[in-house]
This record gives sequence, C-alpha cells and structure tokens, in this order.
Amino acid sequence: MLSEFDLIARYFVRPSHPKNRATLGVGDDCALLTQQAGMQTAISSDMLVEGRHFFAGADPFKLGHKSLAVNLSDLAAMGAEPVAFTLAFSLPGVEEEWLSQFSQGMFALADAHDCELIGGDTTKGPLNICITVFGRVPIGQALRRDAALVGDDIWVSGSLGDARLALGALYNEYALNADALDRAAIHLHTPQPRVALGLALRGIAHAALDVSDGLIGDLGHILKSSQVGATLNVDALPAGAMLQQQPLEMRRRFTLAGGDDYELCFTAPASKREAVLGAALAAGTEVTRIGVIEAERGTRLLDGDGRPLDLNISSFDHFASP
Amino acid sequence: MLSEFDLIARYFVRPSHPKNRATLGVGDDCALLTQQAGMQTAISSDMLVEGRHFFAGADPFKLGHKSLAVNLSDLAAMGAEPVAFTLAFSLPGVEEEWLSQFSQGMFALADAHDCELIGGDTTKGPLNICITVFGRVPIGQALRRDAALVGDDIWVSGSLGDARLALGALYNEYALNADALDRAAIHLHTPQPRVALGLALRGIAHAALDVSDGLIGDLGHILKSSQVGATLNVDALPAGAMLQQQPLEMRRRFTLAGGDDYELCFTAPASKREAVLGAALAAGTEVTRIGVIEAERGTRLLDGDGRPLDLNISSFDHFASP
Repeated sequence: MLSEFDLIARYFVRPSHPKNRATLGVGDDCALLTQQAGMQTAISSDMLVEGRHFFAGADPFKLGHKSLAVNLSDLAAMGAEPVAFTLAFSLPGVEEEWLSQFSQGMFALADAHDCELIGGDTTKGPLNICITVFGRVPIGQALRRDAALVGDDIWVSGSLGDARLALGALYNEYALNADALDRAAIHLHTPQPRVALGLALRGIAHAALDVSDGLIGDLGHILKSSQVGATLNVDALPAGAMLQQQPLEMRRRFTLAGGDDYELCFTAPASKREAVLGAALAAGTEVTRIGVIEAERGTRLLDGDGRPLDLNISSFDHFASP
Repeated sequence: MLSEFDLIARYFVRPSHPKNRATLGVGDDCALLTQQAGMQTAISSDMLVEGRHFFAGADPFKLGHKSLAVNLSDLAAMGAEPVAFTLAFSLPGVEEEWLSQFSQGMFALADAHDCELIGGDTTKGPLNICITVFGRVPIGQALRRDAALVGDDIWVSGSLGDARLALGALYNEYALNADALDRAAIHLHTPQPRVALGLALRGIAHAALDVSDGLIGDLGHILKSSQVGATLNVDALPAGAMLQQQPLEMRRRFTLAGGDDYELCFTAPASKREAVLGAALAAGTEVTRIGVIEAERGTRLLDGDGRPLDLNISSFDHFASP
C-alpha cells in the first residue's frame, strides 16, 4: 500500500513548474513565496464535501477540476492573478486510479491558469477536499464587494442556471433528456473560472463577486457591503442554453437562485459600458447588463415588461437548507 | 437555526484586530494581505479529521487550540513569524455552544501569537477542520529541511512522548493513573507551537522541522533532503515528565516514534552550541542535544553507553497505519 509520502510524491509533486514561483514547495514544513512591493496577496479557501458539493462516486478528473475552479473563481472575483495553491484532502483510502485522475483534472486547470501547487496535507477520512488559493493584485486595484455606487449598472458574465438544471435532473426533481443533461452538467461539473474577465475589469468595475450560491443571494452581499439597493430585470438574466428550453417560471427561479454558477456579478458606472464590453471581448466571455444599483435598500425584481415580480426565492444556504 | 452567514458573523468575525494586517478579511471573495519587499510568505495547510486526529466528542476549546497549534508549529519550524490564517471546516450541524468554545480556544492561541483570522469556509459534513496559516520571514532566513551539514549537532526542543503516552492510555493500550493521564494529555490536546524558538534560531540553526509524526521519521526527512545520515543518542532524548516514569523500552519507543509532539528538531554547527542555548533561553524553551549529522546515510541509534541499538520502529504514517 502507498504511504502518505509515496502518495504525495507520485501524484502531487512535479519535477518543475515553468514559473517556479515557490522558493520552496511541496515537501518542507511550509512553502515560501517571495513578496513584491506594491502588491497584495489575495487568499481564498473552499472546502468540498462528498455528498454535499459533489455526488459520491463523482468523476475524479472533473472533481479535480472543480475543486480548483471554485477557488480560482474567488480570485477572478477580486481581479487577482492566480499564483499558487495548497491542497489538503482526506480520503477513505488510497485508490491510485482515482488519485491519478483527480490530480490530472486539477493540474490541467492549474496549468491553464499558471497556478502552482505549493503544499498541502493528505490524511485518511471521509472524502473532503480543501484548497486554499493565492493570487496577486496591485494595491488598491482589487474588486471588492463594498464598492458598488448608486447608478452603477449591474452585470453578469456567461450564463446562469444550467448547473442547477442538471442538479435537479440528477436528483430526479424532473426528467431531462440525456443530451440536455450532458450539456447542462458541463456547467455543474467543470465550471470555468472567469479569471481573464476579472483581470480585464480592473479599473473598470466597481464591485464584484462570484455567483456560487445563486445570483440574488450573492448580489445581496454586494448590496449589504456597499449599503445600497438594486433593481434587477429578471427576464434579462442570461439563462444557460439548456435552461432556455425550460418554462418561464423555472428559468426565472434557476437564473436567480440556482447556485454553482461561478459567473462574475459586478457593477460598473454607466459611463463605462463600452469599456465593460471591451473587457469582456478581450477576455472571451459574454457579459449581460441585468439591473441597476439604487439608493433604496432591498432588491426589486422586474419582469420583461418592467412590472414588479414577487418571487418567493432565497439563496442556497449550506446550513439552513434541509 | 443559524444560517452559514449568521454563523460566520457570530463566532468568527471580530470587529477589529489590533494589527489589522488584512486590508480585507472575512466577508469578501478573498482576503487581501499587503506584500513587502525583502520578505517571503511561509504557507502551510493542515487538515484534522474527527476519529483520526482527535476523538469524537473532543473538547471543542482544546480542539480549537490544537487545530491552529499544529499549523503554527509548521511556521515555527521555518523560523517564520505568524501573520494570518484561514479556517475551513465542515460540521454535521450547527451547535452554538460547540462553535463558541471552538472559536474561543482558537482565538486564544491566535491572539497569543498575533495571528489574524482572515477568511475561510463553512459547510455541512463530517467534522473536518482545515487551517492554512501564513507567516513571514526575510528572504534567505527560513529554516529549511535540506540545510543540514555533516558535523551539525542535532537538537530537539521541549520533551517527547507524553502525547503518545496519553493516546495509548485513551486507547486502552495500558492503564495510567488519572493524574498522570491528565498531565500527559496536556501535550496531546494543547501542544504549544515553538514559534519564539523558531524565530530565535534564525541565523543559528541550519535545518529544522517540527516533530509531528515521530522524531525518527521526521528526522529522516531532514536527512533525505540534506543527503546526509545521523547518529542519535536514544537515551539522551528528553522524555516527557509522565513518560519518564515508564519502563525504558516504552520511553525509547515513545520518544523516538510517538507522534503529536510538535517540538522542533533542528541541526546547528557545534560552534553554535552557546548560541543555540542562548536562543532557547530567550524563547523560554528547553533544548537538548541528541545526536550528530554524519556523511554516512541512514540513522544509527546508540544507547546511553554508546552501544548500537536495534529497535524495530517506524514513523506514524496516515495511510500505512491500520
């Protein structure tokens, strides 16, 4: 049987990284990253639990991708450039094929974003994956949640709700044909963190965050931090390609409160509309204008004809949900 | 029932920290730490799993202490000054008294080492605590594993084996009277990371690490990284106060391969013996000289009379152990 040290060496230590940013990486008490004057380190940590964030028996390659993707998405939301990450995980036992696939999925995404694994921990226990990611951003340029201003446009990247659509089908809430499920599930299992867009929005956007628990709940964090309110044009929300084929009520519910979207929601002054569209074009990511920041607190929902909508929905909450 | 956000706010967000090192802490997508020219960030991540690293029903105050202590111990082993940490954990459910106690134990140690909680994640799942800790060290001054030189003395801080002694009694491997168990268990449940010693050893010690899996196995990492060997004087190893009252064979086994000691093992040239003792005095931590680094690979064990010892022991390994 592989020991912990053999395991680390075989699947998680790579002979060299193109950038070799860490003076010291996997294999000492700590990794060392050299600091630079004028920069800030952006740090985020996410924990994924089997049966909660992914199904038991989930494809390990995709799980490796997603575990890192949800963390890179937090860097994207700050406008921070990925630098490095640590991986701590507990596993019921050593399954080499699983580890091989998991590490390949994780490293494929890490390499695409030039993000280096610099340390971590492995132990025995119920499957749990905890990644902490490090990015860098020039002082003062981070996209914060508390920076929305009255009059700002509200934007969202990509599309919303296909991950939720796939999840509901997998939970047998409703039936979805196999092709639609496969296509929707791409959003659920292998979300693409909007790193390039986050970087391109520096100096353009005011506030930003990534939509992981549902748009309306996550936008609420911006509103609360910035002490403002908003009006959202619900029928302007960009539904995922598979969700577009579903009934209006489901489209509204899943775009507003689906969860697992990992798109960026951000605000920017109306004077920067061209700049926002240019940044999106440069980043290869679509963006959609979905509402406006207002002084009046709370979130007002309008339908496609500008009439008030009263939908009884709330954001996904890990402890409050059943 | 408390939601995830209420939970974070109630127990883990503190109005202000004396140093306020984080430009942005708990409550945004990422925390932000400002970098400084000439410094390196030391990073370590440890995951603690219920039933593996601590007993089900463990005292939450002590668990909060230990979860952070094992991470601070990694900073100590690098000679890095604690700066900040993130906390990600999964819990079966929200128990306010548990959270209150856990956070108090964690913050008591964090404050003692001036280490600020800057972010993290909470979710539902089997109890699992993952802390990632950040320290700082001037470039080139970190105590690495690969820096031992032939002729170096080998030293260890504090005492070894009382944590293992307590663990064995708790597992009913043997009986220990209640008072001895209580005293030995202090080492098991509330280890004191040797941060001050690690800082004091900068510029004096060559290689260092923290002893978490048993001295002989952990020393082996220094030897392998530094491409050297060692002779250890087994009966010179400083046994814990409770272990000292046990038979010789147990003293040898538990000091050499006990685990959970969180003491520093380090090497330093013989010319620096006075400096080592001075650093230990300044840090308020005892240190003991236990062997010497040699060119011949492998570890040779000697008894109190200088005769070779052949003990069949190996370091604790999370996956290889039953």
